[in-house]
Amino acid sequence: MSDFLRFVSHRIEDFAMQVTFSPLEGTGTVVYNLSLVRAADLEHTLSVFRATCEAGVSPSSLIRILFAGEEIDGFVIPPDQCGILTLCSTTLDGLLLQRGIPFNPIGGGVVEVADNIPKRFTHLIKYEYTTIDPLQVLVSQEITSVLQVMKNGNGSLLGNIRECHMEAEDDVEEVLEELTDGYFTGILDLGLPNTPCLGVAVDPQYMGLAALGGTNWMAALREEGIKVIMQAMKGLTDISTMQFVSDL
Amino acid sequence: MSDFLRFVSHRIEDFAMQVTFSPLEGTGTVVYNLSLVRAADLEHTLSVFRATCEAGVSPSSLIRILFAGEEIDGFVIPPDQCGILTLCSTTLDGLLLQRGIPFNPIGGGVVEVADNIPKRFTHLIKYEYTTIDPLQVLVSQEITSVLQVMKNGNGSLLGNIRECHMEAEDDVEEVLEELTDGYFTGILDLGLPNTPCLGVAVDPQYMGLAALGGTNWMAALREEGIKVIMQAMKGLTDISTMQFVSDL
Repeated sequence: MSDFLRFVSHRIEDFAMQVTFSPLEGTGTVVYNLSLVRAADLEHTLSVFRATCEAGVSPSSLIRILFAGEEIDGFVIPPDQCGILTLCSTTLDGLLLQRGIPFNPIGGGVVEVADNIPKRFTHLIKYEYTTIDPLQVLVSQEITSVLQVMKNGNGSLLGNIRECHMEAEDDVEEVLEELTDGYFTGILDLGLPNTPCLGVAVDPQYMGLAALGGTNWMAALREEGIKVIMQAMKGLTDISTMQFVSDL
Repeated sequence: MSDFLRFVSHRIEDFAMQVTFSPLEGTGTVVYNLSLVRAADLEHTLSVFRATCEAGVSPSSLIRILFAGEEIDGFVIPPDQCGILTLCSTTLDGLLLQRGIPFNPIGGGVVEVADNIPKRFTHLIKYEYTTIDPLQVLVSQEITSVLQVMKNGNGSLLGNIRECHMEAEDDVEEVLEELTDGYFTGILDLGLPNTPCLGVAVDPQYMGLAALGGTNWMAALREEGIKVIMQAMKGLTDISTMQFVSDL
């Protein structure tokens, strides 16, 4: 199978179908991103992560820190580095799938924010046509200004978008309400049926649902000049292995 | 118009239709990539570029160096930096268009090379579904090993692929023959009609044409640890403003 190109939309579905997370209970499996930073940068890294959570540009403040030598899903944290697990927004797609909401992942990109309001996608890479995660590559492009958004409400964030069938609108809204609980949030916009959502077209009878990328804090980290290596959508973990950054 | 997402396939067509390059005469307009390096790194940068040309992993050895304060297409080279213009492989698409060959740009990605033979795309981002150039984002991902390919013929390069109508096979082959002349080359594979090319599917009645990315030398530069900021498909220039790196 390794001989075939594997597009990201299929990886999203693979992971989403394994999500058992319950937003109300705060239990179950979630999808995580893994970031590597130098151990010497850990404190600074945590302060950036904390700040992005407080400013509302990270979809979840759940975190797990791994130290050199610790292993996760077969990957061993290298010497002098720390591994940081945070929630991947694919977790949201898992919730949609759990409830039988027909949905299609559309893509990831850059969202322009003005006066704290998400305005539109200015860049987009569609999941069905890329084998590498859009937000993972966009973090490296110096086209975000997450720190500016945190400071004065104007700038560019990383976001992603999927479309949900309009007949499932009630179910979608139920999911979004449950999410206000605090484990995982970050909805940017729920579009109207048959109407572009933040400038991104949707299929007939579908409505767009845009969310914050779980990678925004890494973009903020890069903007601060801290070196970070990241892998989006790295694996699945039980949410109980993570803790709120405020409890660290 | 700036309110709409502009996918790369349209940018390719915009640029390709302005290419007047004649491979036999060595005249006309070509598409260029622009890279910025620190002025202090210029000599090292040129030596890497030269080495990639000699090893055959850069599609053209034409280059133009701009110094701080010089301007190109409205962009002024910042203090302490150098701008480096090299050929973009969109120039090839311009040649296909000139001759009336029906073609579709497919995408850019990472090509695995074994014993100096290009084997298959291991990553791909399709042009029609991304607003940011695939090879520009992939350069930053540390997934190439251009230096290894240069050293021992095994590793991963950046490549791109388009498909041409099978009825235009003779015209395509004529273009490829003219390209052996030296201004611009770098064909990785011409596939059979209706057959995947380096693992990438083509439309019925089309054949794939894969070429080296003009960005391979920048990937090599990053692998060497030299900081480079790049913009793929930056603009058009007359080829006479460039010179062979061997003549520098």
